[in-house]
Amino acid sequence: MTDQIRFVLPESDMPTHWYNIVPDFPTPPPPPLHPGTHQPVGPDDLAPLFPPELIAQEVTSERFVEIPEPVRDVYRQYRPSPLVRARRWEQRLGTSARIYYKYEGVSPAGSHKTNTSVPQVYYNAIHGITRLTTETGAGQWGTALAYACSLFGLECEVWQVGASFDTKPQRRTLIEVFGGKVHRSPSRLTEFGRSLPEDHTGSLGIAISEAVEVAAQDETIKYALGSVLNHVLLHQTIIGEEALKQLALAGEDGADLVIGCAGGGSNFAGLTFPFLREKLAGHQSPRILAVEPASCPTLTRGEYRYDFGDTGGMTPLMKMYTLGHDFVPSPIHAGGLRYHAMAPLVSHAVHEGLIEATALHQSECFDSAIEFARTEGIVPAPESSHALAQARRAALEAAENGTEPVIVVGLSGHGLLELGAYDSYLNGRLEDDPLSDEDLQAALANVPVI
Amino acid sequence: MTDQIRFVLPESDMPTHWYNIVPDFPTPPPPPLHPGTHQPVGPDDLAPLFPPELIAQEVTSERFVEIPEPVRDVYRQYRPSPLVRARRWEQRLGTSARIYYKYEGVSPAGSHKTNTSVPQVYYNAIHGITRLTTETGAGQWGTALAYACSLFGLECEVWQVGASFDTKPQRRTLIEVFGGKVHRSPSRLTEFGRSLPEDHTGSLGIAISEAVEVAAQDETIKYALGSVLNHVLLHQTIIGEEALKQLALAGEDGADLVIGCAGGGSNFAGLTFPFLREKLAGHQSPRILAVEPASCPTLTRGEYRYDFGDTGGMTPLMKMYTLGHDFVPSPIHAGGLRYHAMAPLVSHAVHEGLIEATALHQSECFDSAIEFARTEGIVPAPESSHALAQARRAALEAAENGTEPVIVVGLSGHGLLELGAYDSYLNGRLEDDPLSDEDLQAALANVPVI
Repeated sequence: MTDQIRFVLPESDMPTHWYNIVPDFPTPPPPPLHPGTHQPVGPDDLAPLFPPELIAQEVTSERFVEIPEPVRDVYRQYRPSPLVRARRWEQRLGTSARIYYKYEGVSPAGSHKTNTSVPQVYYNAIHGITRLTTETGAGQWGTALAYACSLFGLECEVWQVGASFDTKPQRRTLIEVFGGKVHRSPSRLTEFGRSLPEDHTGSLGIAISEAVEVAAQDETIKYALGSVLNHVLLHQTIIGEEALKQLALAGEDGADLVIGCAGGGSNFAGLTFPFLREKLAGHQSPRILAVEPASCPTLTRGEYRYDFGDTGGMTPLMKMYTLGHDFVPSPIHAGGLRYHAMAPLVSHAVHEGLIEATALHQSECFDSAIEFARTEGIVPAPESSHALAQARRAALEAAENGTEPVIVVGLSGHGLLELGAYDSYLNGRLEDDPLSDEDLQAALANVPVI
Repeated sequence: MTDQIRFVLPESDMPTHWYNIVPDFPTPPPPPLHPGTHQPVGPDDLAPLFPPELIAQEVTSERFVEIPEPVRDVYRQYRPSPLVRARRWEQRLGTSARIYYKYEGVSPAGSHKTNTSVPQVYYNAIHGITRLTTETGAGQWGTALAYACSLFGLECEVWQVGASFDTKPQRRTLIEVFGGKVHRSPSRLTEFGRSLPEDHTGSLGIAISEAVEVAAQDETIKYALGSVLNHVLLHQTIIGEEALKQLALAGEDGADLVIGCAGGGSNFAGLTFPFLREKLAGHQSPRILAVEPASCPTLTRGEYRYDFGDTGGMTPLMKMYTLGHDFVPSPIHAGGLRYHAMAPLVSHAVHEGLIEATALHQSECFDSAIEFARTEGIVPAPESSHALAQARRAALEAAENGTEPVIVVGLSGHGLLELGAYDSYLNGRLEDDPLSDEDLQAALANVPVI
């Protein structure tokens, strides 16, 4: 075993293809349905919002999709991202496990989101689109899209959830540094926004409605989404493809446990689907584990049913684990994990028993994150801290049992713009707020019956 | 010429020695003097504040000092730091120059400061020191020291300049995440602090006095400094040593222009002294250029004289370019460049004509920084933006003249905790405030006559 710490692939070894898991599933995932007709959605239904290549990727049955050269050319400004052996954290934990973290915080947006914002903007750019609209909650996605737009010369317009806009001015400034324009949502710029009071604190659902409304008005404007859909998950698989190569560089035969946090599912799928392919092919046999917050336990307490992707009920119906499309989770700090449902492909994998899921309280996650920062020198995003907390549990279990598992954990981003959350934790102002049975049943009651 | 972008040395190629420029200077630099006797300072004078290894490094005549294994073991958690070809920025500038930036923002503290905090803490740790005190202004140094202390099990106590403490809560939180304790300076914990009103906005000079007072009280407590002194500059030379190797990897024979921002001088010296060695040996012939803010123009408008390192006049007298030890620069956002003087070794190199200096206004620097962010995807620290602005000038000049210089620019850190400054710039609230002749003469009047 090498004593190397960081496994940095050379640029020339960066993967040239994204991986599409659909054809490798033992059973095909259920199709999305039109919200009116309940018939499977066709490419034409998506054409007003997305360029043809993204629609094709949404339904492709190819196992590998080539990454266009101009996209690879941006990727290599920060990729391959490092896979790091967490030696100091292992020592602090006294574990016999070998822990590797795949770190996406090196990207311009500080998270994995750039992996999909860059191809999304590229495909729009080659069709002459001049402006993209989107929503952002925690702000990572808006940042990633603004950066990608600045590279390809598109305007970027971001509707930021009002409460987030008011309390996180740094995130707005970062989007502006990258040339994006930020509106507090609900804004006065859309019909839907104007239908709400100006001082409304907003929601992701409202912000989506505003961004979609503007995109639908003009052929040169389109809309971009940062998670959930198949093409977004596809773009993120470069994470896992790199990790497989890097693990081999580290001298490991494979992983025993692969852990990622899961909100909409794109970061999780990006890291784990390539490992799942290897598992389905019998090349290695890792447990694959999604970690979600106890206050938004989509996979562990939701139902696997057709539901809307947005609160307003305008999107296609997708078969997925859901807490109900009008579920509003408690305001935990991991804003990226506060989505009411889970990407259809991740949901399918869980339903088929290929992937497991668990839910954790945020205080345990922050505790792990601080221990990680004090040993590995990286302040994790609150989202990523969920994966770290689960890795710690597994590492302590290994210490007790004297086993030596190889644990791969996804560190989806840094938390340097979320230090307010750390301040709350360090000063005892953080509360755990698990979902009650009553609230769960009330939210599920509104899932449409298909 | 390779089309590679990032030149990432393998861990095994990380330099094993720091470089000491003193024996290579054509003439020896003048010694520091005791503030009372005006005689050269001896090791005994420094013993109450620093451990023996650091005192030895302060006066060593060895050209190379071995980096202890436990320090290298921490370095490789984030080093070798990347040298990156700024291809997109070059395109945006339309320049024929080849621009490479050496990026220190990948460190746990987000700046080059960790390069010296780690060895400083290590040398204290092996002598049984249990606590270190320090001051911090902008906050990078306090962060770096807190991180290093967390690794070696020392307590870290940081006196943060009151105005900075009040307006930058994120920086304080980051220090706390790394386990450090932050006091607003002036504090009630020291005699000197109590002599001032509690709501005083503070200064670096006051914070230094408080940190030194606490360290002097107890044999198990020592003090740590983040710039100016020879041993600090020594530790930073790993930056330039790596850059030399990486430039060779990139297929370049050498640099034509090496640019760094200069506040206390440690980042600048760390990048440029190894290049200066190669220049003095006749192996390459780069111009070496220090960039400082027009509001604190130490090298360009200060005088080369013996002066104190602190405002209170408690440190040894050092021969350096100075604006006067009680000079208070205007509150520009690059807090790390607001020091009244310049490291004696950098000052000596400038005085001997080995290095040049120039001064820029901060608005030009922020303009360059935003252009850089929109192409290279990194938000630079306001300090680093001074080096970028000067690199842009050189790149545009090259475009005009049709020359193809190789420009190496030091990017000492990221600006993710300084987004408030970017917000000011983007929204027209930023003012340039060059130093007036009257203020300069008034400050210089208080430099002691030796």
